[in-house]
Amino acid sequence: MTGRRGRGEFDLIARYFAPLSRAAPGAFALGNDGALLTPPAGASLVVTKDLMVAGVHYPQDEDPATLARRLLRVNLSDLAAMGAEASSYALGLALPEGTAEDWVEGFAAGLARDQESFGVALIGGDTVVTSGPAVLSLTAFGTVAHGACLTRAGAAAGEDIHVSGTIGDAALGLRAVQGGLAALSPEDRAALSRRYRLPEPRLALGAALVGLATCAIDVSDGLVADLGHLCEQSDVAARVAAESVPLSGPARGALAAGEASIADLVSGGDDYELLFCAPQAARGAVSALGERLGLALARIGTVEGGQGVTVVGTDGRPLPLARAGYTHF
Amino acid sequence: MTGRRGRGEFDLIARYFAPLSRAAPGAFALGNDGALLTPPAGASLVVTKDLMVAGVHYPQDEDPATLARRLLRVNLSDLAAMGAEASSYALGLALPEGTAEDWVEGFAAGLARDQESFGVALIGGDTVVTSGPAVLSLTAFGTVAHGACLTRAGAAAGEDIHVSGTIGDAALGLRAVQGGLAALSPEDRAALSRRYRLPEPRLALGAALVGLATCAIDVSDGLVADLGHLCEQSDVAARVAAESVPLSGPARGALAAGEASIADLVSGGDDYELLFCAPQAARGAVSALGERLGLALARIGTVEGGQGVTVVGTDGRPLPLARAGYTHF
Repeated sequence: MTGRRGRGEFDLIARYFAPLSRAAPGAFALGNDGALLTPPAGASLVVTKDLMVAGVHYPQDEDPATLARRLLRVNLSDLAAMGAEASSYALGLALPEGTAEDWVEGFAAGLARDQESFGVALIGGDTVVTSGPAVLSLTAFGTVAHGACLTRAGAAAGEDIHVSGTIGDAALGLRAVQGGLAALSPEDRAALSRRYRLPEPRLALGAALVGLATCAIDVSDGLVADLGHLCEQSDVAARVAAESVPLSGPARGALAAGEASIADLVSGGDDYELLFCAPQAARGAVSALGERLGLALARIGTVEGGQGVTVVGTDGRPLPLARAGYTHF
Repeated sequence: MTGRRGRGEFDLIARYFAPLSRAAPGAFALGNDGALLTPPAGASLVVTKDLMVAGVHYPQDEDPATLARRLLRVNLSDLAAMGAEASSYALGLALPEGTAEDWVEGFAAGLARDQESFGVALIGGDTVVTSGPAVLSLTAFGTVAHGACLTRAGAAAGEDIHVSGTIGDAALGLRAVQGGLAALSPEDRAALSRRYRLPEPRLALGAALVGLATCAIDVSDGLVADLGHLCEQSDVAARVAAESVPLSGPARGALAAGEASIADLVSGGDDYELLFCAPQAARGAVSALGERLGLALARIGTVEGGQGVTVVGTDGRPLPLARAGYTHF
């Protein structure tokens, strides 16, 4: 019932986490009460925080390195949605008593790997023991030029709605992780699982959307729910053509095999693609951007006056969407 | 097993947490992927993160308003130790399924009250469900002028060691909360409990120590352990005279009643007083500062060459200290 730390915590921090802070002088090698962050002149800091709970947000037996990378990537995806450049992160770990040191070592190794990929460093945090499942908290920091930050507000009627990559893979991937999707090939199941377990934060895209997109969000709750967030914050409605939603080969396979409906895919979360709006006049620029980044950008619908999100099926009728996916404000 | 949020979370955030972000325009009323923080020109941002677990760091039945205030204050105390001015915080809540809305309402009311006291605002966060005990994560932000940040490194042999307030109350307070300290009066037990449940972050002191102290830390792990952290980061040793450690009336009562030893008090955590070093030439300035702030500042010992912390008892011999409190690096 005290906040005091035992030797174990100090040892773990020194051995596995302090090395992850090497690139950040303001982290004081994790030997201080807090860290110092100094954004470059003319820039603001962007802050985002996401939690994951074992057995709720990931399978209890998930590989710790993959889990660490997913935790980091999910937060970096929020920075991407704001057009920020990722810089650092703080980590809060509540771990079950008796967590094996191997697990911590693997977790830190995963962070080290993705720190390299994304150019970020650990700047601080806290490690505590819990009698329940692990709770992982990450606060990510990025920088964005003053006034350049993308938000969820800003879409106007008549604009195009675009999304990067493919949609619905992560929701299918979770089912594959859980042993489902028996009708698909092992390769397709593996590809979908990977999309769930290791999302790709679209940082280069987000940064390039500053000045081009009028609003942006990352697809974490599901395409329809997150489009609903954009609509709510921008005070507009959205109409999406189901056949224009970009699907991967394995996702098309799952549709063909009757393993999922298009409604499932547009409601499924965890894809961490970027969803954004832009004026029709920017279509050429959006296409050119996609080509430059080697990343598919699909135009999936139109911003309208009103409220709510409608997904129109190939029969011209609105898709019936489950309540969970359809977040109407 | 998905990160998707249900209606419940959106409702709670809108009802109880969004109002707490009103004073921070960069919080976007919690309606965005992240928040924007812009430190004033010439200032850096200070970041700190502390977690609390129900049943580990606080009693499961703790009043939620008091708990929220303690969580915030413990983090603000880290900012104080760095000489920073507190500005904002992000909140990560992993709550047991079925947590009563009353609990959330009380928790938010506690935050609202302390936001007012300390001039801070909520800028973002995440709320998730856990199958285990509540895990509360808070990331606090402050600002400090470039180069002015206090750290744990900087103490030099010959300097004085000072501490604010009184030491050992919180450790006794925890025992009082748990039904102990029967030999004390109800008033003394209540006073000690309050010191445990609602620590006072020494923000004004911390800010005033910039340019005066050579290093600082807040007493969270215990006076001896935290002095050990200062010594380790400053590469020095410390010698403390037990009789100079400032004790409250109730703590003196507990000593007299045989409920605790001085070794217990200097090893007890959670006081959240500031421990700092300063040159002998600064004694007058330190005294004047204490008077100006109306806060007792006690000179408790001397920085020496070497390693480790020694607490000398009234008999002139080093106190035997339990391993948990005595963190020797």
